[in-house]
Amino acid sequence: MIASAESHLAQARGGDKRSIARLLTIVENDEPGCADILRSLYPETGRARVVGVTGPPGGGKSTLVSRLAAHYGSTYDRIAIVAVDPSSPFTGGAILGDRIRMRDRFLDEGVFIRSMASRGHAGGLSRATMRVVNVLDALGTGLVIVETVGVGQEEVEVVRVADTVCLVTVPGLGDDIQAIKAGVLEIADVLVVNKADKPGADETARDLMQMLSLGKGRTPWKPPIVRTSAQDNTGIDALAKAIDAHVEWSTASGDRDARRAGAARQEVEALLREALVKRLEERIGQDRVSEAVARVARRELDPYRAVDELLADR
Amino acid sequence: MIASAESHLAQARGGDKRSIARLLTIVENDEPGCADILRSLYPETGRARVVGVTGPPGGGKSTLVSRLAAHYGSTYDRIAIVAVDPSSPFTGGAILGDRIRMRDRFLDEGVFIRSMASRGHAGGLSRATMRVVNVLDALGTGLVIVETVGVGQEEVEVVRVADTVCLVTVPGLGDDIQAIKAGVLEIADVLVVNKADKPGADETARDLMQMLSLGKGRTPWKPPIVRTSAQDNTGIDALAKAIDAHVEWSTASGDRDARRAGAARQEVEALLREALVKRLEERIGQDRVSEAVARVARRELDPYRAVDELLADR
Repeated sequence: MIASAESHLAQARGGDKRSIARLLTIVENDEPGCADILRSLYPETGRARVVGVTGPPGGGKSTLVSRLAAHYGSTYDRIAIVAVDPSSPFTGGAILGDRIRMRDRFLDEGVFIRSMASRGHAGGLSRATMRVVNVLDALGTGLVIVETVGVGQEEVEVVRVADTVCLVTVPGLGDDIQAIKAGVLEIADVLVVNKADKPGADETARDLMQMLSLGKGRTPWKPPIVRTSAQDNTGIDALAKAIDAHVEWSTASGDRDARRAGAARQEVEALLREALVKRLEERIGQDRVSEAVARVARRELDPYRAVDELLADR
Repeated sequence: MIASAESHLAQARGGDKRSIARLLTIVENDEPGCADILRSLYPETGRARVVGVTGPPGGGKSTLVSRLAAHYGSTYDRIAIVAVDPSSPFTGGAILGDRIRMRDRFLDEGVFIRSMASRGHAGGLSRATMRVVNVLDALGTGLVIVETVGVGQEEVEVVRVADTVCLVTVPGLGDDIQAIKAGVLEIADVLVVNKADKPGADETARDLMQMLSLGKGRTPWKPPIVRTSAQDNTGIDALAKAIDAHVEWSTASGDRDARRAGAARQEVEALLREALVKRLEERIGQDRVSEAVARVARRELDPYRAVDELLADR
């Protein structure tokens, strides 16, 4: 193992926050030492409870997650929040800063907060998130809350790392609510109407209920709808109860293990693909690949034939 | 080639709409015959102009795209719209139906409309879109407009297939506009403020201008901001002029070729990865891969060691 990674690992196991942060950066960005760290920690993973929280922007998720972390403070020794924020070369820093400041008002010192950029991860955001969760898990974090903003395919992939997925909506999103929530509704285990003191909360809950009744669930689990007002700290107990009930069901039914096996398969297959391409490039040379690509771009060769040629003399 | 694919291909070249639709379904879903169709058509691709239109839901993109297609009706013999719609098991059909009905009001018979689901494509949505665009291109479509709804990473990948990317916003999206547009702003070649007759249009244009001035462009091209009101058919000429100016610039500067080469590289590399994994599985057997995955899921093995073991005796 790279010496620096090894020393960070030793100190992180002892609880040193700077070393934990450094380890997380290494695995988030797949820097040198990443594989060694994960090899070393992997046997100790699989113990943490992982809760995902997602939903459209403006739903008050950060406050809700802070409240949830505070609620679970007495249950778990170590709690971490992994916030996957939309990053921007223009405004990303400021947005992030605001969120973190906001959080400080509600959180104990015991909660570890990690912000991840939503772009620029080799191999994809969901794999980077999984690696970060695995490190926190192995270092003894009992509860990891993964928070994403947005409702696209990528957010769906990210929250899939969780054992329980909470989808947070708010009253008054208008007609777009249907289009936006389509893909995400299918992976939600608990539905949250936050800002439930606002007008339209009943209507939003009714819309969700109706959409649920139309869909065919992947499992027999029926996602409950919980109303919260994170700002006033109301409904958090009910939300935690709904999450606990889902964990109990998914553990007993084997659904949790099935999800985790699915995640393991994806990671093994992704690493396999990377390793195979690397081996091929070492054998035939990056130049030959580039040359084939250039011919495809000039339409002299179709991409299928290009691959046939590259693999021909193996 | 599979006989049915071959006969569809012959009829599609003759302009038969049903055969074109069938070919597109085969390549969209990577059904048997897909590779043969693309091998056969690939030398004739690379001629169409491809324009991408993206932005948050509710921006009036469908109407704008219809107007744009109508505007270009005199320039191009064949025009196609590829609409990548958010699909939903609950409401997808209805939304799609509405859009298509809406379109009929503005469009000539000469415009071919293809709707694609946003999920469920092996190998990813952007690759499926590229294949659909390539088939339309090879069949003599002069202009292909690719329209996506949303502003996540996936929409960014999809509109990347275009030579020119238009980002459509509307007044009154509120503070969320900053977070939402972060990733997309970087790939936009033309910025459109649609519904520009609504209050707040000046502010939206000013916000965009400011965000642009803060960012470092990937190229010397400075995205112009165009105001339109698609419903009233105003500003469409100005938008078309901005698109034409970008095409002229990107052709002269080599940026268009660089983008197309990038797309070719991605496709070759993706096919290469698929072929390598398939070969490996044929050699060592799917069972051994599944067994390794199960051990990773049980934390008996880390994913890196699993890959080492699978590749060990090759």
